[in-house]
Amino acid sequence: MNFLQASEPIVSQRLESAHASRLDRVLLAHGGGGQLSDELLAGSILPRLGNPLLNQLLDSAILPALGAERPALTIDSYVVQPWRFPGGDIGRLAVSGTVNDLAVAGAAPVAIALGLILAEGLPASTLHAVLDSIAATGAEANVAVVTGDTKVVGRDQADGIYITTAGLGRVPADRQLAPQRVRPGDQLLINGPIGDHGLAVMLAREMPEVQSVLRSDVAPLAGLVDDLLAAVGDDVVFLRDPTRGGVAGVAADLARDSGWHVTLWEEAIAVRPATRHAAEMLGLDPLEVANEGKVVAVVRPAAAGRALNALGQHPLGQQSAVIGCVTDPPDGLCELHTHIGGRRIVHKPYGEQLPRIC
Amino acid sequence: MNFLQASEPIVSQRLESAHASRLDRVLLAHGGGGQLSDELLAGSILPRLGNPLLNQLLDSAILPALGAERPALTIDSYVVQPWRFPGGDIGRLAVSGTVNDLAVAGAAPVAIALGLILAEGLPASTLHAVLDSIAATGAEANVAVVTGDTKVVGRDQADGIYITTAGLGRVPADRQLAPQRVRPGDQLLINGPIGDHGLAVMLAREMPEVQSVLRSDVAPLAGLVDDLLAAVGDDVVFLRDPTRGGVAGVAADLARDSGWHVTLWEEAIAVRPATRHAAEMLGLDPLEVANEGKVVAVVRPAAAGRALNALGQHPLGQQSAVIGCVTDPPDGLCELHTHIGGRRIVHKPYGEQLPRIC
Repeated sequence: MNFLQASEPIVSQRLESAHASRLDRVLLAHGGGGQLSDELLAGSILPRLGNPLLNQLLDSAILPALGAERPALTIDSYVVQPWRFPGGDIGRLAVSGTVNDLAVAGAAPVAIALGLILAEGLPASTLHAVLDSIAATGAEANVAVVTGDTKVVGRDQADGIYITTAGLGRVPADRQLAPQRVRPGDQLLINGPIGDHGLAVMLAREMPEVQSVLRSDVAPLAGLVDDLLAAVGDDVVFLRDPTRGGVAGVAADLARDSGWHVTLWEEAIAVRPATRHAAEMLGLDPLEVANEGKVVAVVRPAAAGRALNALGQHPLGQQSAVIGCVTDPPDGLCELHTHIGGRRIVHKPYGEQLPRIC
Repeated sequence: MNFLQASEPIVSQRLESAHASRLDRVLLAHGGGGQLSDELLAGSILPRLGNPLLNQLLDSAILPALGAERPALTIDSYVVQPWRFPGGDIGRLAVSGTVNDLAVAGAAPVAIALGLILAEGLPASTLHAVLDSIAATGAEANVAVVTGDTKVVGRDQADGIYITTAGLGRVPADRQLAPQRVRPGDQLLINGPIGDHGLAVMLAREMPEVQSVLRSDVAPLAGLVDDLLAAVGDDVVFLRDPTRGGVAGVAADLARDSGWHVTLWEEAIAVRPATRHAAEMLGLDPLEVANEGKVVAVVRPAAAGRALNALGQHPLGQQSAVIGCVTDPPDGLCELHTHIGGRRIVHKPYGEQLPRIC
């Protein structure tokens, strides 16, 4: 079923002729598994994503043995609209999201599998831009697409391009990151200002006429998390990327799942002025908005300084901060201390305030 | 980003109350990553697919170490229309396709990751039927869904339900299945009649008024392939599942990729009467039509008898047959000897004769 149906020498051979055919738009036939699928592969996909494993074009990619390290598996579908937004696009989002889901599980990325669902008529320029973005983001995170599949549906049966990425990672035998390890005294850290991704996408979609410096924070965090784990090791007890549901969702889940009380300090949680402005225009709370380049780290109190230092030395963590802590009583609730001195319980957002944000 | 955002005890607790809420149709908000996403998980997904790994609801599922065995990774998206067809549905298709892509790489299935893209308004009964089918097919193949993700798009932005499944498998250190191992004298075997899947789907879609006994052959082949490899071992040199592009596509690719001449004997390739009848009505060649429960095995000549015997003892291989062989000259072509004594070159099908067949 894979789009991978030829061996390397053949593909290199087909590459030039297909390139010469200058694909204009995606046709239903490109998803049929026949010669036209091969042409899409050879002319559009392999020139951008090709590598020794992908080029083998087998039904499954076979990777080197991991020995005592444990395999981690994750999957996410991406349907973000518009497909390109200030600061990123659906390709960068897919690779970053998958790398980040591995990273917060304590896994180093090993390989990515790419499933494309394309609408008939999708401009080749869009497909190529997304593939270029996937390649660039993969290179940034030091991980490659090793296998994939393409399906094409009718033009009214999808909105341009949907991507599903699965990630394989490797977790050291002794690593354990889980809400059950969290206990009173632990500190909550985040690597920068919140709300940029969701608000950049919503602003681009709902108010395209508004000029703003707001950019999505979408980025792969494998390197940042690696630096954190190297600096603090087992004193990191839990990691989570605050995507859909935002920091509010992560903190409310953490309180519930650990059973302890989680306190957030609003004044410690940075929000860029442009992000706050967009949130006000759109009637949204940045605390509940998706981030795609942020990680919430829970660390033992004695390690908080070292953790902050490690995060702060990474380009993606220069505005890192301690934003809260875990305390008694064991009530499973999250509470926000507001900057005007009030307190309120933070709930996980109910439903879809931001459709098709990722 | 995953739909997996709570820890096990919480989920068990939510399970009953959500069940009581009686989901009627999928809403945009079910894909938002908030409380409604949790309800979809607890009320619809975990009761059907739950297992100790999935129930942990982490961003990535962490699996036991594989030691010296190599991890295999595969991914496929499924957009079949109609979602339910004679002999199967999109859920059975997704799990079977992924298990089979692992099996033909010589990998035993370890875990499945499930990405759902749902259209707003999808009846809950459809979602539940598909999830039940995923669970049943997984049980048949002895593999479970360990992680997943759900996105919801507008009702006019997808056609009901699209599924992407990724599979993690494990390959013994010494196993090598590749077209480069194929050489003259090798025999081509298949485990039964061809064309059933594609023609069952097309008949259901294009001529729903026609009564037929035709059924898709969709099935997970992990057990069958396991029996074959146990019986014949290293004398199996290549496996491929003839899905899109059919047996014609596999044989043409095999000739091209091995560099040898591949001969098929038409009279040895079984086609059920109902399948042939449907092919004639729809103007299709069963040789080019997708199968979803078939494997083409290339084995050394001395092992062909043992291979046929092993396949024939499995419920999914009772009509197994030798359908061709590999010979000189090294022209990279596939030739069909027709039942009336003619010969023709078999090409890989060009494009999409069968849209949305898988």
